[in-house]
Amino acid sequence: MSEPPVAGRLYGVGLGPGDPELLTVKAVRVIADAPVVAYFAKAGRRGNARKIVDRWLPPACIELPLYYPVTTEIAFDDPCYRAQLAAFYAASAEAIAGHLRAGRDVALLSEGDPLFYGSFMHLFERLRDEFAVTIVPGVTGMSGAWAAAQVPVAWGDDALAILPATLPQDKLAARLAACDGAVIMKIGRSLAKARAALARAGLLERAIYIERATMDDELILPLSHKPDDSAPYFALIVVPGQGRRP
Amino acid sequence: MSEPPVAGRLYGVGLGPGDPELLTVKAVRVIADAPVVAYFAKAGRRGNARKIVDRWLPPACIELPLYYPVTTEIAFDDPCYRAQLAAFYAASAEAIAGHLRAGRDVALLSEGDPLFYGSFMHLFERLRDEFAVTIVPGVTGMSGAWAAAQVPVAWGDDALAILPATLPQDKLAARLAACDGAVIMKIGRSLAKARAALARAGLLERAIYIERATMDDELILPLSHKPDDSAPYFALIVVPGQGRRP
Repeated sequence: MSEPPVAGRLYGVGLGPGDPELLTVKAVRVIADAPVVAYFAKAGRRGNARKIVDRWLPPACIELPLYYPVTTEIAFDDPCYRAQLAAFYAASAEAIAGHLRAGRDVALLSEGDPLFYGSFMHLFERLRDEFAVTIVPGVTGMSGAWAAAQVPVAWGDDALAILPATLPQDKLAARLAACDGAVIMKIGRSLAKARAALARAGLLERAIYIERATMDDELILPLSHKPDDSAPYFALIVVPGQGRRP
Repeated sequence: MSEPPVAGRLYGVGLGPGDPELLTVKAVRVIADAPVVAYFAKAGRRGNARKIVDRWLPPACIELPLYYPVTTEIAFDDPCYRAQLAAFYAASAEAIAGHLRAGRDVALLSEGDPLFYGSFMHLFERLRDEFAVTIVPGVTGMSGAWAAAQVPVAWGDDALAILPATLPQDKLAARLAACDGAVIMKIGRSLAKARAALARAGLLERAIYIERATMDDELILPLSHKPDDSAPYFALIVVPGQGRRP
């Protein structure tokens, strides 16, 4: 005859670019108070999100790792891959909903900022109608990258384009040609294509290649000095704007 | 006969969008340890940066307010205004350099992220050749805005355009038409122009108006519901992307 518990609250918690000191004070507080901490990881790995929060996680919390169904890069537009991902997100949302319905708050971790290209968004869309949500914004990976490179990215009236390297080369080149500064994200296997698009837009010489910014094995160099086209998925390229500076 | 002191280090410290809990742990530490804390403010005001760090500032630190020479919005391309600003930045850099040469570290505060449209950049460019610098990236104002509005801004292959509202209307409209999602910053007196550009790009219905996000007097509404064209300088408009979501 007892009442059902008051449902828990879902927190989307941005972790910043990688350095554990770049969590916000609010993120640290939310994680410390959360009875359940959920995070994405590749199958068989601990995952970067879990690693970033290691020092902030209370010993008593329930950990809920959400393992991606595939570990190798395959085409995003493959219908089978999309179906697998959709099933994974649905199952992950259900696992979180179970805790929320039992009255436990859940902190769902998100590298960078939760609403900026984050996997968090796929669970948020599936849970937001039923549960109360608080978003804790985070320092984006790109802010970590241009801070580590000490490159002012946008001045005055500069228009800044944020472009996934997964776009077709023609689209990349056209959008690069129409901006003042740019960030090309998710480099991974697309570095040769990004290079070609930058060259067509006349921006190759201004481009800076940045890998694992703010982490121990950070790598920063002018793109023109990078001899090969191998890059991790989270590498990015910054083309600084050159706008008004009195 | 004594040696000159080892010069201090300049810290460019991002403060995030306004909520004092959205400083990073690193920003709080750097501010707590800095013998000198410098910040921009309008003449006669305490300033928003100073207000955000109120709870984090150690009582013993030397405060160095840097007061902008003008308090009303005038045309950025006015040569007289540019000369005044250049003189102000040069004098501000010199005031900071005095502390650094005396061996004192200086934390120069920056609302949002220091290298993303920040006044910090003008002093950084004047000081970076002589002094060691550490940049502490921050949560941008736009991340604070889309978190407060609970609006995922970029999905999958979305290209995101960051556009100052101070751009000419034709340029705004053209760039809006060529992106998947957008943020229009620095709204101020440009709201009518931004509205017109959004309408030309067919994006008016998706646009969300956000003012003072994460602060006490935050205001969020669909732009089409905002009855007037008055807005503070730091207001912004978010047009969420609609990309791939399995």
